[in-house]
Amino acid sequence: MIEHAPGKPLLRTLAGEAVWPPPLWLMRQAGRHLPEYRATRAEAGSFMDLCLNPRLAAEVTLQPVRRYGTDAAILFSDILIVPWAMGQGLTFAEGEGPRLPPIRDAAALDALDPEGATARAAPIMETVRLTRAGLDAHHPATALIGFAGAPWTVGCYMIEGRGGGEFHAARRALHADPGFFAALMEKLEAATLAYLLAQAAAGAEALMLFDSWAGQLPPRAFRRWAIEPARRLREAVRAARPDLPMIGFPRLAGPMLAEYAAETGMQAVAMDTAMDPAWAARHVPPHVALQGNLDPEALVAGGPGLMAEADALLGAMRGRPFVFNLGHGVEQVTPPEHVQALIARVRGG
Amino acid sequence: MIEHAPGKPLLRTLAGEAVWPPPLWLMRQAGRHLPEYRATRAEAGSFMDLCLNPRLAAEVTLQPVRRYGTDAAILFSDILIVPWAMGQGLTFAEGEGPRLPPIRDAAALDALDPEGATARAAPIMETVRLTRAGLDAHHPATALIGFAGAPWTVGCYMIEGRGGGEFHAARRALHADPGFFAALMEKLEAATLAYLLAQAAAGAEALMLFDSWAGQLPPRAFRRWAIEPARRLREAVRAARPDLPMIGFPRLAGPMLAEYAAETGMQAVAMDTAMDPAWAARHVPPHVALQGNLDPEALVAGGPGLMAEADALLGAMRGRPFVFNLGHGVEQVTPPEHVQALIARVRGG
Repeated sequence: MIEHAPGKPLLRTLAGEAVWPPPLWLMRQAGRHLPEYRATRAEAGSFMDLCLNPRLAAEVTLQPVRRYGTDAAILFSDILIVPWAMGQGLTFAEGEGPRLPPIRDAAALDALDPEGATARAAPIMETVRLTRAGLDAHHPATALIGFAGAPWTVGCYMIEGRGGGEFHAARRALHADPGFFAALMEKLEAATLAYLLAQAAAGAEALMLFDSWAGQLPPRAFRRWAIEPARRLREAVRAARPDLPMIGFPRLAGPMLAEYAAETGMQAVAMDTAMDPAWAARHVPPHVALQGNLDPEALVAGGPGLMAEADALLGAMRGRPFVFNLGHGVEQVTPPEHVQALIARVRGG
Repeated sequence: MIEHAPGKPLLRTLAGEAVWPPPLWLMRQAGRHLPEYRATRAEAGSFMDLCLNPRLAAEVTLQPVRRYGTDAAILFSDILIVPWAMGQGLTFAEGEGPRLPPIRDAAALDALDPEGATARAAPIMETVRLTRAGLDAHHPATALIGFAGAPWTVGCYMIEGRGGGEFHAARRALHADPGFFAALMEKLEAATLAYLLAQAAAGAEALMLFDSWAGQLPPRAFRRWAIEPARRLREAVRAARPDLPMIGFPRLAGPMLAEYAAETGMQAVAMDTAMDPAWAARHVPPHVALQGNLDPEALVAGGPGLMAEADALLGAMRGRPFVFNLGHGVEQVTPPEHVQALIARVRGG
């Protein structure tokens, strides 16, 4: 068991303290906007090759910490590792996103192999261990975040067989084949819990649950398939590891972000780009930290517009537990000097 | 001047009356889920050929009224008619969506020809006249809705040159080139006003403003580029035609739907699929009608699930002005008998 390090700014914030200036990290901070990432990626081969190579995956996880001194490192991986580890085929076509053989009936669902998932995901856990060792040795104030996709979002890809669209097949299955859909969600919830607990055991200090397509759920389904699974996962992680905070990201939840924050027991909820931080500050319980939500395009643009956006966000969040972040992933064309200027502004505040 | 007909259920609702059972129409009710549409489309040629053929466009506008007896007909057209009428090239590749030569600088913007737009859009106004005459003759309780895209949403396509993605170029221009962006918005707002007023003069009895990509705007930009233009357009239409109600649809506005409803002066706001109707009922001023927001996939699925979704929506809306609709467009694979069953349920309530 690796010891918990409660003095790190991110972990203090997730414990409910209004740390100021706030801790900062950026979604998809490890990735294509960094030349050092592109070099490591070239050495690794495909995106999946990189995800499954613990030495190189730990290296790219640490790269933004070295360059920017971010307050968190987030495991370099993908939310589709869970279905892959259960035996669903997965490839990433360059520029095309993920492709999986769609799962749309009980037979395809039964063909999954949750028992073998832990062994298949072993390289990911080795990445967590190597990254944590690297942080402990060289970046003792930076916390390691592990993550998984939420069952609905991962299920969207599993049913659809790909991303990039509106997930018609997944949304249709929800209404048209509720028995199959519930069975898939149940299987995914169990696999997600095991995967998160394995990351915790390997050294993750906080866990984030990405429900990127939560906004595709109509409101009653949002309660049943976004809030309820997140609440059960939060409770089950707490039962096993009471020290471990969690961050929930129900993207495009709209006003239901407040309900998600009040009911899931998450220590933080992440705001997407569209969320008004002032609204969230009024409606999310004050002990729940907020994370987000600068527009990644403002970071691409840089200059006075970026500074104005950052200042407005800081102004709305001052006095409450807050983790500075983007509302969506870093764009590939983001100049690293814009990231540096942003961090200087946030830390200067 | 064509007389206003205040006795129609849609218009009574937009005047603030809690008509029950509520009036019903469906977004993109005229379209590919109907065999009679596919026949007319085959006769017309391309999608643009159909939009610009008044006789056939009026025919497809009226088809769902004949089949379903909906309380509104909405002009069959496209939000990109406005840039097309200003001289931006526009084609629709089958299954690929719109393609336009992107407008990304002042020179391209100056090359647009707003003065010529009225003449180019004349066939659309003829469609409005023919449709209104058809309703007056055969469907006197059905109101005719005209529409336009909101400046931000239309600008997204004009800058990006296509749809289907996340509108990176448009969102980047907002931050990186504010002068160009504001000039484009100003030109679009003026053209949109002229286009809406022309539809009103031709016989439209209500006007809907579609801001389909409002959810891509970060909160400060949402106020400036979604709420403010909608408020100005609403005021300018009122100045010219005080009798004419308007419906605003800032899709994926989240909690800012309430602000949009309170500040724009719209008679109704439309809820997208993700919006919780109970939340909207509590936070949208009671004199503003709500419209929406059944999941189109529930309509594809049909059966008891559809009935349960419809009943929940009706339950949340009872007692206030409400227009039953979908939260997104009708899916092509929707069986018409599911639409008929839905309408029977709503009218039975």
